[in-house]
Amino acid sequence: MAGMTGPDGSRFLRACRREPVDRTPVWLMRQAGRYMSEYRELRAKYEMLELIKAPELSCQVTMQPIEAFDLDAAIIFADILPPLEGLGLKVGFEAGEGPIVYNPVRDEADVLGLASLDVEEATWFTLEAIRLARRELESRGLPLIGFSGAPFTLACYAVEGGSSKDFTITKRLMMGRPDLWRQLMDKLTALVGGYLRAQARAGAQALQLFDTWAGLLSPEDYAEFALPYNRAVIREASQAGVPVIYFSTGTNGLLELVARSEADVVGIDWRIDLGEAWRRLGPGVAIQGNLDPVALLADWPELERRAAGVLESAGGRPGHIFNLGHGVLRDTSPDNVRRLVDFVHQYHFEEGS
Amino acid sequence: MAGMTGPDGSRFLRACRREPVDRTPVWLMRQAGRYMSEYRELRAKYEMLELIKAPELSCQVTMQPIEAFDLDAAIIFADILPPLEGLGLKVGFEAGEGPIVYNPVRDEADVLGLASLDVEEATWFTLEAIRLARRELESRGLPLIGFSGAPFTLACYAVEGGSSKDFTITKRLMMGRPDLWRQLMDKLTALVGGYLRAQARAGAQALQLFDTWAGLLSPEDYAEFALPYNRAVIREASQAGVPVIYFSTGTNGLLELVARSEADVVGIDWRIDLGEAWRRLGPGVAIQGNLDPVALLADWPELERRAAGVLESAGGRPGHIFNLGHGVLRDTSPDNVRRLVDFVHQYHFEEGS
Repeated sequence: MAGMTGPDGSRFLRACRREPVDRTPVWLMRQAGRYMSEYRELRAKYEMLELIKAPELSCQVTMQPIEAFDLDAAIIFADILPPLEGLGLKVGFEAGEGPIVYNPVRDEADVLGLASLDVEEATWFTLEAIRLARRELESRGLPLIGFSGAPFTLACYAVEGGSSKDFTITKRLMMGRPDLWRQLMDKLTALVGGYLRAQARAGAQALQLFDTWAGLLSPEDYAEFALPYNRAVIREASQAGVPVIYFSTGTNGLLELVARSEADVVGIDWRIDLGEAWRRLGPGVAIQGNLDPVALLADWPELERRAAGVLESAGGRPGHIFNLGHGVLRDTSPDNVRRLVDFVHQYHFEEGS
Repeated sequence: MAGMTGPDGSRFLRACRREPVDRTPVWLMRQAGRYMSEYRELRAKYEMLELIKAPELSCQVTMQPIEAFDLDAAIIFADILPPLEGLGLKVGFEAGEGPIVYNPVRDEADVLGLASLDVEEATWFTLEAIRLARRELESRGLPLIGFSGAPFTLACYAVEGGSSKDFTITKRLMMGRPDLWRQLMDKLTALVGGYLRAQARAGAQALQLFDTWAGLLSPEDYAEFALPYNRAVIREASQAGVPVIYFSTGTNGLLELVARSEADVVGIDWRIDLGEAWRRLGPGVAIQGNLDPVALLADWPELERRAAGVLESAGGRPGHIFNLGHGVLRDTSPDNVRRLVDFVHQYHFEEGS
């Protein structure tokens, strides 16, 4: 069983601190989701935002993969957009369109007009879901991960008004009005920092920052327009005494900058060899990743071969948390997830490898 | 004026061979396109495929940016999908949907059922457009670039049936049926190799391979399922005696593998410092790139600062071809394009830098 000696001594939290563990810990981004029939049944009755805003339902979804698989951590079921309501933005999800911000931030008046509501009030439902889930996880000795969008990624949605291929409106504002950009990012940084601290107080034992769109930036722009704000929220979250994971995709050209985020753990995508990424990040961080989510759609022997490849790339060194390089895809077979999790736990590294 | 002493001695072709040049050569991916009113006027009268399949019109579009700006090379106006008709696939473009393959390749019967039509017959319109454009460019001393989709990227469209975020159907076939994948890739490799040679015979003086979706692959998968086929088509194209440019995006985690493609020039996206990318690729290749296309939407001082950054990153070493890290965006101002091209030509490197 996962867990070892209760959450503080759990494999997952020990690995976050790069302490030796008996088995490589494993959890999966989007481990609760449409690939599970239990989730689809709930989604047939409730809209996405209804699930997120009802703490009992969020808690229930959070626990679905924990009940089905031998995972080493739960992650609270929530979404990165609702906290933007703390700035007075109106968010929603439209079928086929994905996330929407109905009143996007496009100019000086929009930036100056952003509210700064009490973050705990604006996100009460997720904080309450964290309290509920912690209680359920306690008896299993499993830790709970809270999360937030990183300031840059939240800015992408806030400015663009939804998802996009290039986020040109956002990047145009960033390049053209760096003064405005900084004001917007300062507000997002305060929001995210407060939200992460509130999650830790509510019971989250680790915090993951999702920087989904960081891979749209050149190294120079990342260093100037995203990294300082990541560092600020990570410092603030670290003061709560919990490890922070920084996950981004498409950033394999600027991992040396990612390493400067001061995160305890860096999550990487599958488009780089894990061992090479770890060398470039340096020995001061733990690493999370990085199986291609499509591998979970393959037959078991192929999936097994690929999972072994990721484990061997990490070489059994303390500080590897097995995960995918992105979220679980909806066509994934739960049986493959079960076998993958068990395989990671049973994997035996050769002596001296 | 661009060109120096006729196309063979042109800045662009000299830079492809890493020979010293008087000024850094510059051309832009998608330099003919919707950002130009001349192009929009034609598109109001003709569908995309009508333009591509009428050699006089393709030639006319090819020349539009050459007449407007002091570019160092033209690239034939065409698309990567129509050559797939040489395998019996039916391709089209649907408004709002992008490229479509109406009879995608999904299983063994589909792969075995692929035709191998005469590639010159299947692509006669682009080959004829190349002959026409060469004639017009000759008097200006400017070289013409031909191009093709790389085998992996063409496989993505052929299997998926159109564009996609993750191309999971394609990658699932690749992982699950590597035997079938190899058969498909062999057919695509023969098609692309023949198409590139035919373009060189028709008058193209350089050939670019677009591997738009290579960034979906892990290093291991790239090495096994894409690289050998790239190398094969690049070797075949090289036998025609023209330089080959290999362009991909999202591959900054596996540039060392990209370097093994045996291309003369490697095109990179903007998500890595150009100097660092060149170090990782090694001194044996020229490099093309890598301004963020969004920079062309900024005001001139900001665009100038960013263009200078790219040039300084290359350091004035022989073998840099200035370009964007991806295609020109449709909101780009032609005036910015003009100023950018002139700026690159006038840029003065400090001695000894």
